[in-house]
Amino acid sequence: MSRRKPRPSAPSGRQHQRGSGGPKPSAPFEDPTLLYGRHAVQAALANPRRTVVAIRHTPQTTEALSAILDALPAERRAELPVPQAVDRAELDASLPAEAVHQGLLLKVEPLDDADLDDLIADWQGRDDVLVVILDQVTDPHNVGAVLRSAAAFGASALIMQDRHGPPVTGTLAKTASGALDAVPMVRVVNLARAIRDLQEAGFWCTGLAEEGSTDLAQVDLRGRCALALGAEGTGLRRLTRETCDALARLPTCPPIGSLNVSAAAAVALYQARLARVSGGDLHSLKS
Amino acid sequence: MSRRKPRPSAPSGRQHQRGSGGPKPSAPFEDPTLLYGRHAVQAALANPRRTVVAIRHTPQTTEALSAILDALPAERRAELPVPQAVDRAELDASLPAEAVHQGLLLKVEPLDDADLDDLIADWQGRDDVLVVILDQVTDPHNVGAVLRSAAAFGASALIMQDRHGPPVTGTLAKTASGALDAVPMVRVVNLARAIRDLQEAGFWCTGLAEEGSTDLAQVDLRGRCALALGAEGTGLRRLTRETCDALARLPTCPPIGSLNVSAAAAVALYQARLARVSGGDLHSLKS
Repeated sequence: MSRRKPRPSAPSGRQHQRGSGGPKPSAPFEDPTLLYGRHAVQAALANPRRTVVAIRHTPQTTEALSAILDALPAERRAELPVPQAVDRAELDASLPAEAVHQGLLLKVEPLDDADLDDLIADWQGRDDVLVVILDQVTDPHNVGAVLRSAAAFGASALIMQDRHGPPVTGTLAKTASGALDAVPMVRVVNLARAIRDLQEAGFWCTGLAEEGSTDLAQVDLRGRCALALGAEGTGLRRLTRETCDALARLPTCPPIGSLNVSAAAAVALYQARLARVSGGDLHSLKS
Repeated sequence: MSRRKPRPSAPSGRQHQRGSGGPKPSAPFEDPTLLYGRHAVQAALANPRRTVVAIRHTPQTTEALSAILDALPAERRAELPVPQAVDRAELDASLPAEAVHQGLLLKVEPLDDADLDDLIADWQGRDDVLVVILDQVTDPHNVGAVLRSAAAFGASALIMQDRHGPPVTGTLAKTASGALDAVPMVRVVNLARAIRDLQEAGFWCTGLAEEGSTDLAQVDLRGRCALALGAEGTGLRRLTRETCDALARLPTCPPIGSLNVSAAAAVALYQARLARVSGGDLHSLKS
């Protein structure tokens, strides 16, 4: 067992600072109200919190779109607009050249960022919650990729700083492959405070750091678990590191000892997921 | 223990088909003879198999470059060209707009692809070798990312099909973050035959597939181990799947059950690395 601090237990009632919805998109073609690609479109259509303004598709994807819509509950279908078939050229023209739209495009309203206090309240009574925290990871591909792995391994939120996270763009949404509509994103003003709030709500926060004193595989990641990862090169900032309950390292080897942050996140989320699906026998055997 | 077939033991002497060096780059700005970014440059300078034609750097990176060069063996330093300081604008102009060169650029000769038979001969006497196999993964970012994780987790080769892998471009090299010069890339004509050659050389080949019958964490990944991953959507081709010794799944959950191939590779390589660094105690405890 490598827990360094006694684990907090009672959730805090303190009001949490909330970000103002994140920075603005940096380029006009990165329109945050356009979602494209099969997985992103399917997840947005299925998300009851998502307002869909228009559905456009090529004639080739009529059938696939019908199958997606038919699988939705009737009340969700009733609130969606009628799909419009358009030429591929028209879809191409709405998006940046490199966008792989797969014949499906949605015009949507951006999701509101989730509020950490609200989520903590929602999690009341759940003793098994996994969240991931990104400290100044700014690349939308990386954040989208982390979001996707977070969804795949059952995480309940992605938390990042308001000022140092990327805006939600089509790029991020496409990389997330539907996870944008599956995992709530929380933007906070102060990441260390968010970690303390999680700790007060019973979360054990493990930061990934090369100088970590413990192997990640030896950390108990069951129960309420937060995983914090920093940007490549700089890693977790000092205050973030100091606020974590434990710092863990991955078993990498020279000469290329460092992983891309989205690869490191996938590994950490996998390890946390293993601790859950294996019913903890992995850990009880090892401790 | 989840081994499905008896394990082969003796290496084969049969001549292996070899790819012809991979497809040509698809765009003129993706010049495979230009490497940029600190990690890619540092690894290429350190790689004795790499011929460096020119070293260019901005005045701001003079000191960092000196430190990299000073750390090299004298005989390697002696064969490198004299660095030229140039304006940032000149570096910018040599590369695509989105290239993050970090003030360092090399003009190099492409590495020869490695030959599988040669590598198998090199591994003679090593009972612990990890390799990764990609089946028709064509995106250079994904291949670069897999190469980087392969290096970080101690893999000895990346094997892919000659005709369905991406060319080695600056994008691939930058994403690989130095791993292009650390992990040999092998291109083969026939992937199933390459797997059989590995099996004859004592490798156990585990394919990742959603329909896998075993959890990856339950597979014995010690010793000579090959991990095969397919492209997103299509996965491993039928013949590749059938040639693997075992098919394993990752513990993902709905609604976003699928990982990006580079995330899946990071996880699989991590699991294989764990089996090695933990001295196998993880597996002996579990089996």
